[in-house]
Amino acid sequence: AFVSCAEKASASCSGAGTEENIQSKLIIPKAQGLKISGTFLDEISHDIPHQNWGEKEWDRDFAYMKAIGIDTVIVIRSGYRKFITYPSEYLMKTFGCYMPSVDLIDMYLRLSDKYGMKFFFGLYDSGKYWDTGDLTWEIESNKYVIEEVWKKYGHHKSFQGWYLCQEISRATKGAIAAFSSLGKQCKEVSGGLPTLISPWIDGKKAVAAAGGDLTKAEAVSVEQHEKEWSEIFDGIKGNVDACAFQDGHIDYDELDAFFSVNKKMADKYGIECWTNAESFDRDMPIKFLPIKFDKLRMKLEAAARQKYDKAITFEFSHFMSPQSAYLQAEHLYDRYKEYFVEGTAADFFIVQALRTETGDVLHRQLVEFLHRGHADRIEFHLLLFGSDGVQPGIVLFLDEFLGGKVGRHDFDAVLVDHNPPSGIHLR
Amino acid sequence: AFVSCAEKASASCSGAGTEENIQSKLIIPKAQGLKISGTFLDEISHDIPHQNWGEKEWDRDFAYMKAIGIDTVIVIRSGYRKFITYPSEYLMKTFGCYMPSVDLIDMYLRLSDKYGMKFFFGLYDSGKYWDTGDLTWEIESNKYVIEEVWKKYGHHKSFQGWYLCQEISRATKGAIAAFSSLGKQCKEVSGGLPTLISPWIDGKKAVAAAGGDLTKAEAVSVEQHEKEWSEIFDGIKGNVDACAFQDGHIDYDELDAFFSVNKKMADKYGIECWTNAESFDRDMPIKFLPIKFDKLRMKLEAAARQKYDKAITFEFSHFMSPQSAYLQAEHLYDRYKEYFVEGTAADFFIVQALRTETGDVLHRQLVEFLHRGHADRIEFHLLLFGSDGVQPGIVLFLDEFLGGKVGRHDFDAVLVDHNPPSGIHLR
Amino acid sequence: AFVSCAEKASASCSGAGTEENIQSKLIIPKAQGLKISGTFLDEISHDIPHQNWGEKEWDRDFAYMKAIGIDTVIVIRSGYRKFITYPSEYLMKTFGCYMPSVDLIDMYLRLSDKYGMKFFFGLYDSGKYWDTGDLTWEIESNKYVIEEVWKKYGHHKSFQGWYLCQEISRATKGAIAAFSSLGKQCKEVSGGLPTLISPWIDGKKAVAAAGGDLTKAEAVSVEQHEKEWSEIFDGIKGNVDACAFQDGHIDYDELDAFFSVNKKMADKYGIECWTNAESFDRDMPIKFLPIKFDKLRMKLEAAARQKYDKAITFEFSHFMSPQSAYLQAEHLYDRYKEYFVEGTAADFFIVQALRTETGDVLHRQLVEFLHRGHADRIEFHLLLFGSDGVQPGIVLFLDEFLGGKVGRHDFDAVLVDHNPPSGIHLR
Repeated sequence: AFVSCAEKASASCSGAGTEENIQSKLIIPKAQGLKISGTFLDEISHDIPHQNWGEKEWDRDFAYMKAIGIDTVIVIRSGYRKFITYPSEYLMKTFGCYMPSVDLIDMYLRLSDKYGMKFFFGLYDSGKYWDTGDLTWEIESNKYVIEEVWKKYGHHKSFQGWYLCQEISRATKGAIAAFSSLGKQCKEVSGGLPTLISPWIDGKKAVAAAGGDLTKAEAVSVEQHEKEWSEIFDGIKGNVDACAFQDGHIDYDELDAFFSVNKKMADKYGIECWTNAESFDRDMPIKFLPIKFDKLRMKLEAAARQKYDKAITFEFSHFMSPQSAYLQAEHLYDRYKEYFVEGTAADFFIVQALRTETGDVLHRQLVEFLHRGHADRIEFHLLLFGSDGVQPGIVLFLDEFLGGKVGRHDFDAVLVDHNPPSGIHLR
Repeated sequence: AFVSCAEKASASCSGAGTEENIQSKLIIPKAQGLKISGTFLDEISHDIPHQNWGEKEWDRDFAYMKAIGIDTVIVIRSGYRKFITYPSEYLMKTFGCYMPSVDLIDMYLRLSDKYGMKFFFGLYDSGKYWDTGDLTWEIESNKYVIEEVWKKYGHHKSFQGWYLCQEISRATKGAIAAFSSLGKQCKEVSGGLPTLISPWIDGKKAVAAAGGDLTKAEAVSVEQHEKEWSEIFDGIKGNVDACAFQDGHIDYDELDAFFSVNKKMADKYGIECWTNAESFDRDMPIKFLPIKFDKLRMKLEAAARQKYDKAITFEFSHFMSPQSAYLQAEHLYDRYKEYFVEGTAADFFIVQALRTETGDVLHRQLVEFLHRGHADRIEFHLLLFGSDGVQPGIVLFLDEFLGGKVGRHDFDAVLVDHNPPSGIHLR
Repeated sequence: AFVSCAEKASASCSGAGTEENIQSKLIIPKAQGLKISGTFLDEISHDIPHQNWGEKEWDRDFAYMKAIGIDTVIVIRSGYRKFITYPSEYLMKTFGCYMPSVDLIDMYLRLSDKYGMKFFFGLYDSGKYWDTGDLTWEIESNKYVIEEVWKKYGHHKSFQGWYLCQEISRATKGAIAAFSSLGKQCKEVSGGLPTLISPWIDGKKAVAAAGGDLTKAEAVSVEQHEKEWSEIFDGIKGNVDACAFQDGHIDYDELDAFFSVNKKMADKYGIECWTNAESFDRDMPIKFLPIKFDKLRMKLEAAARQKYDKAITFEFSHFMSPQSAYLQAEHLYDRYKEYFVEGTAADFFIVQALRTETGDVLHRQLVEFLHRGHADRIEFHLLLFGSDGVQPGIVLFLDEFLGGKVGRHDFDAVLVDHNPPSGIHLR
């Protein structure tokens, strides 16, 4: 009953269909940018609307992240004013914070353990710095948080660092004292785990999210930026291990000028030079939707040219995830993979036996699974259901399905006689 | 051919896969909020972009509403300036309104009849109040509308009330006269059907939707609010039966202060105290997307604590519906059900025979059906197609599908030998 | 084994299910508007966030366009400041433009060839006009672009016109000189291919996209509009063949007044009178999402009443496409078809044999295919997989599927005994 392709000598054996195999024709060298290996997790957001995901969606998102090489997740902040990510007795009592319905820190740590991610904990932001311009307020409000969090969650193998969440752009009142003091305490309590900051450059696009403007007239010069940040780096070195400047406030032709200075300063003061590659578009009236791929590419290429140490993004789940509420994000994920993932082709022919235990199950889940497969550029994805592997009746059906292309089969997979350019993938 | 789970003693019989069964771990008591039992229908919108749904989508949305306990739908307004919901000869002649392509009032009433909903008709808004600040203009413009609408649509069994759509927040010129006069006329013409208003509280977030600001400096105090609204309630009692203050203009820690005063006043003047729980987020630059679930929860919990009579929302179809163009809405629906729906579990095992007549048919409809099942937290949803019920060949296929888990079958359902925690659901 | 419907005399043979067959009840005459036959392609955008589509999505979008009668695609601009659509040596050297990752002009022309579309090339916008108010700057910057583009892409059979992308609304410095000079050069280099402009009317909604306002106080009068544009038309006639005024800046009851004047002027000066029917909504705080269908309908009906020559839209891919990231667009597509496509019905019964070669393959592709079918208002879409056409086993399965409705079959299709109102469609 099973006839191989060779025997049939039919044109229909020639591989995947043309329509659905369409590839974009890139006219630039691929994979020249610094690959994104970390992302912020933006729950408790300033300005990005909430997706209302449950643990199921978060679990899946960690899988999507891992699939493109992300190994680090950074909670953007554990709380902002009265909204918090975990049930902190201290913050609820002292700051009147609201009890959250889910312990996000617990969830993110469990998922980080599961997916082998490094987890960075973002400190608490009381809002007082934003109201007063003085960063020293945040030292006090975080003293107990750092203790509490390490006691509660420090045992997780994935707890690998701290993010000092206070954002500044220029020489700011109390900045050196705050970053030094917070960084020192984080390291002391945790046996020296690394600390990270992510300031912004006070460039032409440094405008308020809620306002109508896209740019402003007075932007910082490269020289002034270098002067102010040399002082700050000198003051915080030893207590801050990495600095990931946000890359979205300057223009695309200013990237190398600012990035080279950042790298020079970071090297001089012994701080790792990361880039925070913003994956949302600052140039559009809707604030904010996913960025145009070429803009992200140019920023990552500049980071590579300037030999940055690591690229993280703000942030994957809204702006790059295939399950984002912004559907442009899924396409950005596709474009990103097209550019970065070597050797991928759309004509793989995957045959996979799905078992009930794996959770790769039916219906909506099936659509999502296939969707995920698609994100991996698998165009043909034949699924064999049933927890007992391949059953003869299924093979019969499959053979009909494929018009006689099935060769032989074993428990987990079916050999399909097929000769696509990139070969057959069986698993 | 059909072997039961017990006989097979295989690990694969242990139930649904782990991955897709993931539940969010709620750390708060469930179902403490006032459950939403009503929603506005926001066609002819001030500031929410149109979804362009046809009757098919509206029909499905009523089913979604019903599934979470909504029994009341309230047309937000039957017209605003020149755009109207029904072909009103009067409004087209007198106000130059545009002929609509669909009679939405007719459609909503038919769907309300079908789904057993109470329908509230929202009056016409000529825009003159917004232009002049004087609400008495709206008495005149609605005089004929009320007559016309009751004559045209009053025979519908679902026509159960009136919504006086004029929105105010403070003591407003002509407010008492307008609400009293409009409410009186509505009740007289319809044999005393109830009337509803939905003002906003002039809190810190009472800012224009089209502007860049999220908050303003001068907000009304609780005392001033009580003073002004006591006067209004005193003036409109008897003609207005229920008042649903919008809950989104004050901060989350002001909820109880304002809500307790609202309830006290409502009780004193014999008006039902409803809350209009806004399901969109007022704190974000994109105006507006679905609200973060915990914010909605806090507002509904405050309404329950203050013993409000009923919760309605503005509004289900954009911000909570699984088919909303804003995909965050679907997740909000899931979070809402997770919190409110007692005894739900994700491991139900539904086997359902779909018949052609039921309209639960193929393809896109299939995906949507499964999607809907998913919203009901049904993870395994085995569908048997065919208008003649279960056919032997289908059972054979299903048995393969399930790796031998099928037991016996009858016309409408197949018994699957399975032992999930929550039991097997057959229908 | 195959029993026809007639033989079974069963109620289940009566056709499609009621639920999914729901039709909107239009209370207006259908198809009175001017049908849209062209669309802009808005890559290199001013204010519409990027969808990050690859060639696969663009290919599919051209298919969607064709399905509703679009025969003309117009690149909105080949570049804006430093972002460009094709690898122009000249623009990269002279203006410091960035190398794009894909040659969009090449891609659009290949797709236009494939789908039989007329392609209009939009010129380069250096941004200097926006900065200075003087349009003559753009003559110089486009001189070489026109040469280069014609040399590079002029051989494509679909290259059928030029779009002078500079947008003005009033008598503007250098406008006549610029349009005349650019139009003349375009025509000379290409053997007289037609040229198009698309100005806006300086109406009440002519406000900046990035700002908070929706309207402004000072709008141009019909008389002043006629005066200024008569001068411009007089100055550019012969070099500009068509003018498509944007239709979104005036109010719905001003449409006929402005449109009649536009048509009168166009006729007088021998210019084709097109309308640029904006398919996004200018009246909402989110700038911009798809327009409410009735608004689009009213604009197209006014264009028909005033006997405009052609309707194009800005633009299909974000605001009307079934695969747009804005899901409202898909519903707008449905509403548009409901209104314009004569004789459609939702109860067609399509049986189609899919072959591997056609690329209409499995899974995500399947969902998308069905989705597309749905856009064509096909409710029942039975798919037969397999590159060798209809196999007996498949027919057996299908017969079970349909509860015995299958009659006879041949290579490509299966006859289903069915009697829906609109008949059976077999292909």
